[in-house]
Amino acid sequence: MSTNTLSRTETDSLGDAAVPASAYWGIHTLRALENFPISGTPISRHPSLVTALVTVKQAAVMANEDLKLVPHSTARAIIAACERIRQGDLHDQFCVDVVQGGAGTSSNMNANEVIANAALETLGFKKGRYDRVHPINDVNRSQSTNDVYPTSVKLAIVSAFQLLIPELEALAAAFEERGRAHADLKKIGRTQLQDAVPMTLGQELTAFGVSVREDIQRIRELIPLLLECSLGATAIGTGITAGPGYRTAALDHLRELTGLPIEPAYDLFEATWDTGAFLQASGILRRSAVKLSKISSDLRLLSSGPQTGFGELRLPPRQAGSSIMPGKVNPVIPEVINQIAFSIMGADVTVAVAAESGQLQLNAFEPIIAHSLLQGIGWLTNGVRVLTELCVTGIQGNREVLEQRVSTSVGSVTSLVPAIGYEAAARAAKYALEEEIPIAEAVERFSALGRDEASELMSVRPV
Amino acid sequence: MSTNTLSRTETDSLGDAAVPASAYWGIHTLRALENFPISGTPISRHPSLVTALVTVKQAAVMANEDLKLVPHSTARAIIAACERIRQGDLHDQFCVDVVQGGAGTSSNMNANEVIANAALETLGFKKGRYDRVHPINDVNRSQSTNDVYPTSVKLAIVSAFQLLIPELEALAAAFEERGRAHADLKKIGRTQLQDAVPMTLGQELTAFGVSVREDIQRIRELIPLLLECSLGATAIGTGITAGPGYRTAALDHLRELTGLPIEPAYDLFEATWDTGAFLQASGILRRSAVKLSKISSDLRLLSSGPQTGFGELRLPPRQAGSSIMPGKVNPVIPEVINQIAFSIMGADVTVAVAAESGQLQLNAFEPIIAHSLLQGIGWLTNGVRVLTELCVTGIQGNREVLEQRVSTSVGSVTSLVPAIGYEAAARAAKYALEEEIPIAEAVERFSALGRDEASELMSVRPV
Amino acid sequence: MSTNTLSRTETDSLGDAAVPASAYWGIHTLRALENFPISGTPISRHPSLVTALVTVKQAAVMANEDLKLVPHSTARAIIAACERIRQGDLHDQFCVDVVQGGAGTSSNMNANEVIANAALETLGFKKGRYDRVHPINDVNRSQSTNDVYPTSVKLAIVSAFQLLIPELEALAAAFEERGRAHADLKKIGRTQLQDAVPMTLGQELTAFGVSVREDIQRIRELIPLLLECSLGATAIGTGITAGPGYRTAALDHLRELTGLPIEPAYDLFEATWDTGAFLQASGILRRSAVKLSKISSDLRLLSSGPQTGFGELRLPPRQAGSSIMPGKVNPVIPEVINQIAFSIMGADVTVAVAAESGQLQLNAFEPIIAHSLLQGIGWLTNGVRVLTELCVTGIQGNREVLEQRVSTSVGSVTSLVPAIGYEAAARAAKYALEEEIPIAEAVERFSALGRDEASELMSVRPV
Amino acid sequence: MSTNTLSRTETDSLGDAAVPASAYWGIHTLRALENFPISGTPISRHPSLVTALVTVKQAAVMANEDLKLVPHSTARAIIAACERIRQGDLHDQFCVDVVQGGAGTSSNMNANEVIANAALETLGFKKGRYDRVHPINDVNRSQSTNDVYPTSVKLAIVSAFQLLIPELEALAAAFEERGRAHADLKKIGRTQLQDAVPMTLGQELTAFGVSVREDIQRIRELIPLLLECSLGATAIGTGITAGPGYRTAALDHLRELTGLPIEPAYDLFEATWDTGAFLQASGILRRSAVKLSKISSDLRLLSSGPQTGFGELRLPPRQAGSSIMPGKVNPVIPEVINQIAFSIMGADVTVAVAAESGQLQLNAFEPIIAHSLLQGIGWLTNGVRVLTELCVTGIQGNREVLEQRVSTSVGSVTSLVPAIGYEAAARAAKYALEEEIPIAEAVERFSALGRDEASELMSVRPV
Repeated sequence: MSTNTLSRTETDSLGDAAVPASAYWGIHTLRALENFPISGTPISRHPSLVTALVTVKQAAVMANEDLKLVPHSTARAIIAACERIRQGDLHDQFCVDVVQGGAGTSSNMNANEVIANAALETLGFKKGRYDRVHPINDVNRSQSTNDVYPTSVKLAIVSAFQLLIPELEALAAAFEERGRAHADLKKIGRTQLQDAVPMTLGQELTAFGVSVREDIQRIRELIPLLLECSLGATAIGTGITAGPGYRTAALDHLRELTGLPIEPAYDLFEATWDTGAFLQASGILRRSAVKLSKISSDLRLLSSGPQTGFGELRLPPRQAGSSIMPGKVNPVIPEVINQIAFSIMGADVTVAVAAESGQLQLNAFEPIIAHSLLQGIGWLTNGVRVLTELCVTGIQGNREVLEQRVSTSVGSVTSLVPAIGYEAAARAAKYALEEEIPIAEAVERFSALGRDEASELMSVRPV
Repeated sequence: MSTNTLSRTETDSLGDAAVPASAYWGIHTLRALENFPISGTPISRHPSLVTALVTVKQAAVMANEDLKLVPHSTARAIIAACERIRQGDLHDQFCVDVVQGGAGTSSNMNANEVIANAALETLGFKKGRYDRVHPINDVNRSQSTNDVYPTSVKLAIVSAFQLLIPELEALAAAFEERGRAHADLKKIGRTQLQDAVPMTLGQELTAFGVSVREDIQRIRELIPLLLECSLGATAIGTGITAGPGYRTAALDHLRELTGLPIEPAYDLFEATWDTGAFLQASGILRRSAVKLSKISSDLRLLSSGPQTGFGELRLPPRQAGSSIMPGKVNPVIPEVINQIAFSIMGADVTVAVAAESGQLQLNAFEPIIAHSLLQGIGWLTNGVRVLTELCVTGIQGNREVLEQRVSTSVGSVTSLVPAIGYEAAARAAKYALEEEIPIAEAVERFSALGRDEASELMSVRPV
Repeated sequence: MSTNTLSRTETDSLGDAAVPASAYWGIHTLRALENFPISGTPISRHPSLVTALVTVKQAAVMANEDLKLVPHSTARAIIAACERIRQGDLHDQFCVDVVQGGAGTSSNMNANEVIANAALETLGFKKGRYDRVHPINDVNRSQSTNDVYPTSVKLAIVSAFQLLIPELEALAAAFEERGRAHADLKKIGRTQLQDAVPMTLGQELTAFGVSVREDIQRIRELIPLLLECSLGATAIGTGITAGPGYRTAALDHLRELTGLPIEPAYDLFEATWDTGAFLQASGILRRSAVKLSKISSDLRLLSSGPQTGFGELRLPPRQAGSSIMPGKVNPVIPEVINQIAFSIMGADVTVAVAAESGQLQLNAFEPIIAHSLLQGIGWLTNGVRVLTELCVTGIQGNREVLEQRVSTSVGSVTSLVPAIGYEAAARAAKYALEEEIPIAEAVERFSALGRDEASELMSVRPV
Repeated sequence: MSTNTLSRTETDSLGDAAVPASAYWGIHTLRALENFPISGTPISRHPSLVTALVTVKQAAVMANEDLKLVPHSTARAIIAACERIRQGDLHDQFCVDVVQGGAGTSSNMNANEVIANAALETLGFKKGRYDRVHPINDVNRSQSTNDVYPTSVKLAIVSAFQLLIPELEALAAAFEERGRAHADLKKIGRTQLQDAVPMTLGQELTAFGVSVREDIQRIRELIPLLLECSLGATAIGTGITAGPGYRTAALDHLRELTGLPIEPAYDLFEATWDTGAFLQASGILRRSAVKLSKISSDLRLLSSGPQTGFGELRLPPRQAGSSIMPGKVNPVIPEVINQIAFSIMGADVTVAVAAESGQLQLNAFEPIIAHSLLQGIGWLTNGVRVLTELCVTGIQGNREVLEQRVSTSVGSVTSLVPAIGYEAAARAAKYALEEEIPIAEAVERFSALGRDEASELMSVRPV
């Protein structure tokens, strides 16, 4: 080890290299920094991934300690280091690029090195004294990137979804509240952008909430799939280097540390290469994003105007809408949701292609899967919060416009079909539109129904 | 009605038109044929969709009969017509293009017209005598395309998946059987295409089966979501034109006719525009396809050769592989699976974009969603059958090659890490590769372990 | 050869098999039919591909004849067979599935066999007399699937685009004509669905035409890339089995037969595996589809109504829009364009994934690339024709609605920004909207401009 | 304006708000920061976009100065501010989120405000003294986000591609150099992962270079499309607020400032909503990424091993490959290219969906298009540099392995087809493989060719 005050020398199978003296990370991280100057985004941008990696490491060392594979004092120092990082410290040391080759090895080694040096600090040793606490032989003991990395990514995704769920719940509640507030406001429903039959604005807004709640349910059903973890599988699922009892002990500790009902994977070889849970997670995330995008587009349509659009809703103004057109206010919040969704739809393709490209005993492309999913969930979480707080809670129906429209709509004629048949109803609707007369008047002309009877039959009733 | 022997005249809101006298379909279908000459593929190419449409119609008329909304004799004739089609007759009359505008209205009207004319035939009337059995007033009674079409598409998808499941089961069983047949055949596992540690070919093949079984489980979990049906919602979810009791009765009949545990949708407005179940179905289908593609690529890799490749597996030869290179045999069956998967990955994007593009009370793009999903499930069903029967059941491990490789591999050194540490093991591995000597010999040189002790520790053990 | 009247026996490296006596195809096609019962769609559904394959075969045999590699009478018989097929005969014999493994070998062999048997027929021999005309040794002489198939697919795509271009030209012309017809009809333009500043409906419709013309130009620029052909490269680009002079002669004949300025590929090894031209073609097709989808969505938006929508355009009614809502007419033609576009967007992903999955000296997945592209171009060609003829040519602006809106719009205030500044203009716009007074009146209140001066500055002028 | 030392008060149409005193940005940026806390990534992460925005602003003010629309001193101060930012200063002030609603208005306003305050600084005024230099009335004069933002995004993409091109050139050159270095090293080519016919490693590596050069050419052809700019179109293409002569002057200045042959858009209305150039750019970027991914996968395949893989190439070792398997070295650089490509394939879908979602006179989703493209180009630029420098330049063929394989391969038999026919050649190949005898010996058995004659015909010759 160098005595240089600015750097220390570390060694790997490729030779020696100088690591900054202050760095908790070591030579394996250094190699990764040199090899992957791609996105400029370090893995610390996904705090849930850093926390998950370190929590898995802590569970492993606790199991190793139980099995007396690591000395007590070393284990205690490693655990203390893990706790420190889990509390938010040293995250800036997780600096390898989110876009990395090596199937997550660099992320795992970054964690091993930071934990080892933090543990050394606890024990009063200088950084780099790996003869005392070794990143691989001690911190990575009984582990392989093959099991640690997928397990950590899964836990990180679960954590990320757990932040999304309450935001979706708040959004659903906001739509439901707005639905109740507009329960009696009639409007003309539309299919294919053409006027259909009457409904209430409350029914429309409530349905948005119902839809969001279904997505929450789908996310909840997904989580158990993500909690089937291969920890203990080590290299390619063989369990090689992990002693008897390790796997059970490690999963027990992981369950306790996370409070999550983690289950052992059924077949360790399959679990090591399988990306099914990531595909499923991506599909569910996309589902939620696509539906929120549809809802956001509806909000934009319904609030189009102010003079030449649908004009049924007013969204809270959030910023001046134009650098040139004075007074213009645009639906910027729904627009950002659309774009988050478009990004997630793209990232979903990235995940699928990466999953498809796995080969033999491992999928080397899990880092881009992890980044794509964690970024997507994070963006959606932020977007949903903004949508709820800055847009949905302030939605107002345009009562005047809606009432005027319902009173003149021919859409109500559908309710007469059982009484007068489709063809007579169609003729009456066409005539009323062409002549611009009330539909009940036209009905009288093309059927045996009187005007009042027709009006009565056409009144809106809740389902 | 025209007396022309080659055609009859029918009328809709746009006017009169001549329909071929022999056609069971009528003017609405004719309009669709004129408007949508796009793919040349009629909806009859999806028999499960035809059957589902007609089954829904039958359930509806049975409910209408219960509620006395349609005369008994008319109802009986309609039911007989539906039964006839469900048994496979008249499918060629379902001729509207799979790529159609109108949110499924043309598919629904095609069904209404064919059923009406088949019912007329039963009753001894000529085709086109809609005063006796009317496609809309009778066959479509209490219904809207808005509820009939999505319900039918869902049921069709369920039927299609029910044909896929047994094929997947047979594939899983074949992999498992081949796994057992090669349970003792050792090989070197690979990560990132680089030699890793020893495993058995049986473990590798069995894992494929395990993976397929997980996909079956995911499909099974999906089906209840597809069985939440909006039948009875009619236009935009209002239930307009459907009398009290209709919805419950129709779902009861549908449940009985299909034998499926169909549930009513929770919110009819939401259910009318929501495409969540289709997104989920597409995601699950893609998951299965992506994983089968990965497995197929593995089969191609493992059977690469015969002289310069991995050469670990032999796939049954299925056809001469080249029009120019004599003796060449290619992995054509796995290749077709890859391509089915690529197609499904693309169709999944189609489904997502179509779902995202829904507006307000309806998604007008369900026809392309239906076609994309039904085609994908169908292709995968055919592909899996071929993969099982023409490829997997005949897989043979190349014992000679595998045994020779395991005996010289340095991958086993990993199992020495707990005993001698990562760095000494790494030095031994590097040295053995460079010097082309047995790994145990190299270990002796770089550690305190003797050659025999090293060999013992490195022997493969099952997990 | 069997003397059975219903079948003949043919032989390949896998053994003997019975081929129907009437079939022009032979044992290699038979193997493919057994191996690929996937989509049920034969390659004959892409007539441009059948024609391209056979044209390439004809060019090859003409070169072989020039070089005296095939006897004159054999060559003449093969050429006659090719001509027969190019004129549309025997297409039903091209029956291998569009979804096939084997990198196109089955398509190539299907062509070789049909041509050989047609040539035998010309020469007065029975089908299967391959000692006289051999599918491989004669028809496939100097060729490999490696060069014949990609060359044929490229030519087929060029042919398909050549059918699309005139349809796009007709569409552009239709938009331009409608633009001229509405050149003076003022309306309020919209950004982000919010009212912006005045323009004319003519400008809006003309811009659609301009946009379509740009796509035509992009397709034209693409074609030379598709005309770089690897014919003569044979196996993996080595030119193996093709004698000196063959490649030049074959390309000369191909140029003459097609009338297309075909160029030899620059590097034959690269050209054999490269899918760049297909990726580019898919990207250009997608571009056109995406833009037409945007335009179609605009048509749907602008014609939304009739009572509660934008109502600025009327599209020709094409079919009754609902099985339940009488009088409803939907924008079914634009909707079908949207769906074609969604399908092409998905197929584009299929092409990209297939291209990415190529390995070493060949891309084994060109069959799905070919199918995806040819289907997409074909659907778009049909869709554009329908869009032009059944929709765009009949577009009518709703003069009454538009004029009324322009007269009351505050969007014109933007033109006052240079005179009174953004903030005063914004205040005036807000005030006019709130108070429902003419914008000129509001301007007077918030600036030094008089009402008439303001009106004058706000009048619409063409750019 | 507030006299608070920590903040100043600014005002927009929504009211007052406190802006940090030190911020060069103002209230419109503040609103955007509040509305779009989505990705945490500011637009300054795309320096080419910041530079492009500011360059467009500079060209605009220079045109305004020419036309005497902005006072000379104000114009000079604005120009000085633009120059300062273009030299790299104040980029941290461009802080609005890359994921933003509002069609780029927030990015444009962020630029307007930073420029205004930097100009105020030059003139000796405090920040916020917009009565002296106004972000909208002065900096945004004659402009709209509608024209400024798309123009800037296009220029930014051109700049980004200009950084990619030299990296691709270096990569092509490296492949070509490695090709020359291995020009004589024979190997067996492979199609569908099965042994085909002999070629040289030099031909294989050179072809990679050829392929990269084609992509460079495609990018070069793309750039003119990106240089058709709508600057001067202002709101929706009307040119409203821009005086006569402005557009020409602004484009002249922009051409001079950038040194790029910028052309005016043909139809300003079309150019304002059209996203064709972005779709094309995304397609071309994807093409390049997909092909580099294929090449990277080939490098991984060819270097697979060291003991059980193809083992034809050695890539420079870049980092220890495993946290558990000593001595393992993985192809981490090609793997990162694969992942960049997967990400670009996904982002390409994002771009397409965003483009498809444009409505009427504008595409509101250009911010996500801009981010997706700029990120993709940037990642690929970094990836290609790494691929060249850390991988390709160090590629070594494994001469020993390759020579041994060529000597025993049966692939050479293809060259005998013209002499002995396909079937005899196929029998010889099959026999040689089964009996493990030299192919020339087997040929003698199944044909009239002698062993020496066969060997002579089978020797590899360059094309």
